[in-house]
Amino acid sequence: MEFTLEATSKNARACTIKTAHSTIKTPVFMPVGTLGSVKALDMEDVLDLLGAEIILANTYHMYLRPGDETVAKMGKLHGFTTYPKSFLTDSGGFQAFSLSDISKASENGIEFRSHIDGSKHFFTPKKVIDIQHNLGSDIMMILDDLVALPATGERIALSIERTTAWAKESIEYFRKKQKEGIGAEQNIFAIIQGGTDKAFRTKSATELCALDFDGFAIGGLSVGELNNEMYDTVEHTVKYMPKDKPRYLMGVGTPEDLIENIERGIDMFDCVMPTRNARNGTLFTSFGRLNIKGATYKEDAQPVDSECECLTCKRYSRAYLNHLFRSREIAYFRLATIHNLHYYLNLMREAREAILEDKYAEFKAEFYRKRG
Amino acid sequence: MEFTLEATSKNARACTIKTAHSTIKTPVFMPVGTLGSVKALDMEDVLDLLGAEIILANTYHMYLRPGDETVAKMGKLHGFTTYPKSFLTDSGGFQAFSLSDISKASENGIEFRSHIDGSKHFFTPKKVIDIQHNLGSDIMMILDDLVALPATGERIALSIERTTAWAKESIEYFRKKQKEGIGAEQNIFAIIQGGTDKAFRTKSATELCALDFDGFAIGGLSVGELNNEMYDTVEHTVKYMPKDKPRYLMGVGTPEDLIENIERGIDMFDCVMPTRNARNGTLFTSFGRLNIKGATYKEDAQPVDSECECLTCKRYSRAYLNHLFRSREIAYFRLATIHNLHYYLNLMREAREAILEDKYAEFKAEFYRKRG
Repeated sequence: MEFTLEATSKNARACTIKTAHSTIKTPVFMPVGTLGSVKALDMEDVLDLLGAEIILANTYHMYLRPGDETVAKMGKLHGFTTYPKSFLTDSGGFQAFSLSDISKASENGIEFRSHIDGSKHFFTPKKVIDIQHNLGSDIMMILDDLVALPATGERIALSIERTTAWAKESIEYFRKKQKEGIGAEQNIFAIIQGGTDKAFRTKSATELCALDFDGFAIGGLSVGELNNEMYDTVEHTVKYMPKDKPRYLMGVGTPEDLIENIERGIDMFDCVMPTRNARNGTLFTSFGRLNIKGATYKEDAQPVDSECECLTCKRYSRAYLNHLFRSREIAYFRLATIHNLHYYLNLMREAREAILEDKYAEFKAEFYRKRG
Repeated sequence: MEFTLEATSKNARACTIKTAHSTIKTPVFMPVGTLGSVKALDMEDVLDLLGAEIILANTYHMYLRPGDETVAKMGKLHGFTTYPKSFLTDSGGFQAFSLSDISKASENGIEFRSHIDGSKHFFTPKKVIDIQHNLGSDIMMILDDLVALPATGERIALSIERTTAWAKESIEYFRKKQKEGIGAEQNIFAIIQGGTDKAFRTKSATELCALDFDGFAIGGLSVGELNNEMYDTVEHTVKYMPKDKPRYLMGVGTPEDLIENIERGIDMFDCVMPTRNARNGTLFTSFGRLNIKGATYKEDAQPVDSECECLTCKRYSRAYLNHLFRSREIAYFRLATIHNLHYYLNLMREAREAILEDKYAEFKAEFYRKRG
């Protein structure tokens, strides 16, 4: 991975990340393709309509179905899904923790039951790297020890200790495998934990950033804390992260969250919000959110967002989308998803332009002004 | 509507139908867009990926939701849906008859309750023309009196009598409105009834074809009768239909049904089969049907049909589609629908080529040979 920090506007950064499969310009929002499909879209949509240079897939989901060995046989993620740009895969730890009825973290890893058939599985730091080798993702994530909040300080301390130990095991195994020619073109990121406690975040960031990872993520946020707690935690944690490597804030967030965290020095984001909300009827626009099922749109001939250049806004009226939503037509899901992801990706392109011109503060002010 | 009979190959016909919105080359299969959306596709798919020159919408459904007056305000079907080519709308009689809990046909029309909210409605021959004026379809269908089979000869005779009476009322009203400038660019087809009884079909066809309709449909087939009964009924009925007007077989059918009925002189078809079966996992190919959920496709790197030029076959493997289907990914529905409709529309293009070369019998033999 080649990383170039091109410009800053105060703490906001415009970078370029070059993987074996694409050149990613940051700030970047990565659409979520849990099962190797960005929900409701096909890969031509992702490429031609959205121009996404990187998407996510979930290790937990692909491991269970169709199975990472099947994916490997079918040409890894790139061959199987036909998406030729970059994939980032999470470690599966979060899903093992949150989707499984039983999930037990021990010193060696996380035991869980499949949410599909109840079968028992055990994820270890090495095991999730093996799986991600099979998936062939451009950026893989380490297994981290997650804690259900609220938790005692003792439990959080244990989580950080374990995450650091697993990170050491992960990076040693990953680099050793690379020397053997396995995953030579892949990259690996560590995940900083510590909740909203600054001392814990300092400790976790300091320990992990001393290791030879290709990039670093901030995990464990956007789990119910106040927005300001999230922003403060990011602002604090970023200080302990290297300037010459990518910074990824996992599972965040609203357009406002993106704007705020870019200002605090984050380069990469992912979230199910634009895709999931699209399916539920919530569309993001330059003037705020719009719930397309509202009766007020029944005979509204305007596009969702007159400033938007997406297929949906260029072609269809709110009235037609309102009708498709109310009639539960499948076509609605794709059109709404295209719009929301286009909005997110375009917002990132505009943020980048502003950083390159060192006008991020003005850009942010204008972003909020339009929302009134 | 301009109708040109270009070529025949025995009884099979290649025609051109020119409406105010498109030039339709027959034999033609019309994708079903019940609610103004071909399920799982958007109109760019229908235009650019399928090249469809005519699609269906259902009067019953559009009347109930969003309402034909809303559609009229939003620019009729063409403006509302953005599909710029031809629309055919049925009369709503079939849905009023089949989707409603209560449905009573009387001398004057059909009373029914909405399947959405239970509200009471009454369709008359004039009322469904008024609705179709609001929808702005290029081809509208008359209200016909449907009979649940099996029925007594007496009831079928009454159905034919009523359908003829309603047809007379319809064509008078439609032409009168045209003189007033309403529906001047629209066309209207009558629907021949009579089950699989040849005497009844003769009577219905003779009576209706004496009237000034723009085309004629054969209704009341593909309702559970044997294939040969359907084919025999079509073969018989076609003899009483004019050569210089389009012939439309409603609600039919499988690829085999299309091939057989083209041979018997049918020009136009519609059916939910390619779209509905796609969603259920059944894909149509040049070598027969394929159920994509089968475990045998889990690691099958081939396209669905190696002879197919659709987006789905050019880009994706059976393995990926199998995975999307099994994972219930929304993207599956669109990719499968694109394939099945592409197959149907392409089959019609090939049939047309064969007719133009007067080689329909050879084409049909080859069609069956490939299926083994």
